Amino acid sequence: MVVNLVRYRRDQRAEWGVLRGETLSPLTENYDRTSDLIEGGESDWRSAATKDGTVAFADVEPLSPVTTPCRVMCQGANYRQHAIESGMNPDERAFNLFFDKTDAAITGPHAPVTRPDHVSLLDYEIELALVLRRHVTTPTRITEDDLHDYVFGVTIANDLSARDVQLPQGQFLKGKSYRGFCPIGPVLAVLEPGDVALLEDLDLRLDVNDEPRQRDNTANMLYRPAETLTELTEFCNLSPGDVLLTGTPHGCVATSPPPLVRRLATALLPEDKLWASFISMNKRKPYLRPGDVVSASIGNASGSLDLGTQRTLITAPPEGDRP
Amino acid sequence: MVVNLVRYRRDQRAEWGVLRGETLSPLTENYDRTSDLIEGGESDWRSAATKDGTVAFADVEPLSPVTTPCRVMCQGANYRQHAIESGMNPDERAFNLFFDKTDAAITGPHAPVTRPDHVSLLDYEIELALVLRRHVTTPTRITEDDLHDYVFGVTIANDLSARDVQLPQGQFLKGKSYRGFCPIGPVLAVLEPGDVALLEDLDLRLDVNDEPRQRDNTANMLYRPAETLTELTEFCNLSPGDVLLTGTPHGCVATSPPPLVRRLATALLPEDKLWASFISMNKRKPYLRPGDVVSASIGNASGSLDLGTQRTLITAPPEGDRP
Repeated sequence: MVVNLVRYRRDQRAEWGVLRGETLSPLTENYDRTSDLIEGGESDWRSAATKDGTVAFADVEPLSPVTTPCRVMCQGANYRQHAIESGMNPDERAFNLFFDKTDAAITGPHAPVTRPDHVSLLDYEIELALVLRRHVTTPTRITEDDLHDYVFGVTIANDLSARDVQLPQGQFLKGKSYRGFCPIGPVLAVLEPGDVALLEDLDLRLDVNDEPRQRDNTANMLYRPAETLTELTEFCNLSPGDVLLTGTPHGCVATSPPPLVRRLATALLPEDKLWASFISMNKRKPYLRPGDVVSASIGNASGSLDLGTQRTLITAPPEGDRP
Repeated sequence: MVVNLVRYRRDQRAEWGVLRGETLSPLTENYDRTSDLIEGGESDWRSAATKDGTVAFADVEPLSPVTTPCRVMCQGANYRQHAIESGMNPDERAFNLFFDKTDAAITGPHAPVTRPDHVSLLDYEIELALVLRRHVTTPTRITEDDLHDYVFGVTIANDLSARDVQLPQGQFLKGKSYRGFCPIGPVLAVLEPGDVALLEDLDLRLDVNDEPRQRDNTANMLYRPAETLTELTEFCNLSPGDVLLTGTPHGCVATSPPPLVRRLATALLPEDKLWASFISMNKRKPYLRPGDVVSASIGNASGSLDLGTQRTLITAPPEGDRP
């Protein structure tokens, strides 16, 4: 039985509660960091899960259930159709593609996100995010059977990406890490050992202004959580409350031309002209603009796992509020 | 007047001391994390700096003066000649290139480093590392005049890089983050406000088996610390004890062919064949192998800033010690 935790602000204070239906049952203790909740809050959230809710979810401001500082590790091109639209053949993948975001990007699931002035190609990427449970400081073999010992729960993340920084400059880290570029939440679903199999059949849905943009299912994920975490421990320490974003499905605005076109363009155009033409062609596409609203949800058909809905308003930078 | 801090192991315990000449004057308190020392150890290290040393540096095992967890932020192609050998024109640089390593890579300045079995193109990159002083969670303008408020001190880092992972797979993070791929230390030189100008004229020297490989001076750095940290705060939070690696000079084993050759090769060869030929050509080059010893030092001609010498033995993985 999945327990749905929510971190939220009420009366200027951050609290945790268990969500059932439309109401929250607050935990009795405060947990400043997600790791505090993971390491010391189990009896508290188990107890809250048996009580009736007293706070309407509609009356609070949901916050990211992942607090900072934390690591934000990511997988790239990890769904079949998205690998194809990124110019790869999913059946000939030779490696799991890792990158990361800085935790400066983390924001709440209903918080507005500023598109920086110099960014014109702002793209969305809905992702299933694993919230990690344990300290790991050595290479560790993690299997389907003990995955539950390493993953505390799951939530929604949007890996917002400035394609005009990420791609022409080859700067994944910067292009994906501007402040606000990683809305997380609202629900952190705590998995019991028997619930891990639910991760294999979750629908991901992302809309912009109510227009469907991304629709896929975790069944189409290429590198699965256990093998991914095993490989990650070869070159990354993990701590309670860190997060792994497991890749986005197809439907992003940015796509890659077929390999032959890319090779010819690379041969014929100097690099600066190549990217100028990429940006110029892409400006006609439906990238995110101030005023757009992104909504994102993940859950299964039966409703036994429901991570709620993110709602992100894209805004312009306030006048004069620049460093 | 620069104070030289060293973190070291003696009698199975990690301690901090002030190094003068060949002897250490131990601090009276323990500081488990570098941030503890930065935030609470000033009177202790100032006091130790006035005492005679009681411990021979030669009798201890120096440890990384940067403890984990911490952020390891990096700049790419930030020296004139290295930008050229990476296939860029340093006079037409349009942006400061950021990436990061995971803190799993951090190890001591005299610790052996294992070359993973699947890595054949292991390269070195000596870098001046800035150890940061403060929490920064909003975009912040940092100038030469207040740089001292943000930088606690400087040390040596070696940004070891598996080129056969980093380049063919486009995986900077993984290729640069295997365990041990970031020796740091031995000396953490604490800068007084008047010492910041010393950073503009430091010699960097890296040898492999006593053969000179890298020789340059921080005067040839392209993007300087104050402007770099200013830009970093736009997309990255900073905490005391985090580290910024300011880029490596020329002399790495890996170099990039001229742009025209790259464009023609890209047009004529599918991507897998292109990289197979890159790896095959590079195997003849003097990449690091088990048994090699890398030594790295940074300091100025007058000796008023001397960060000591790293000594890194490259080893093969122990038999049977694989996940």
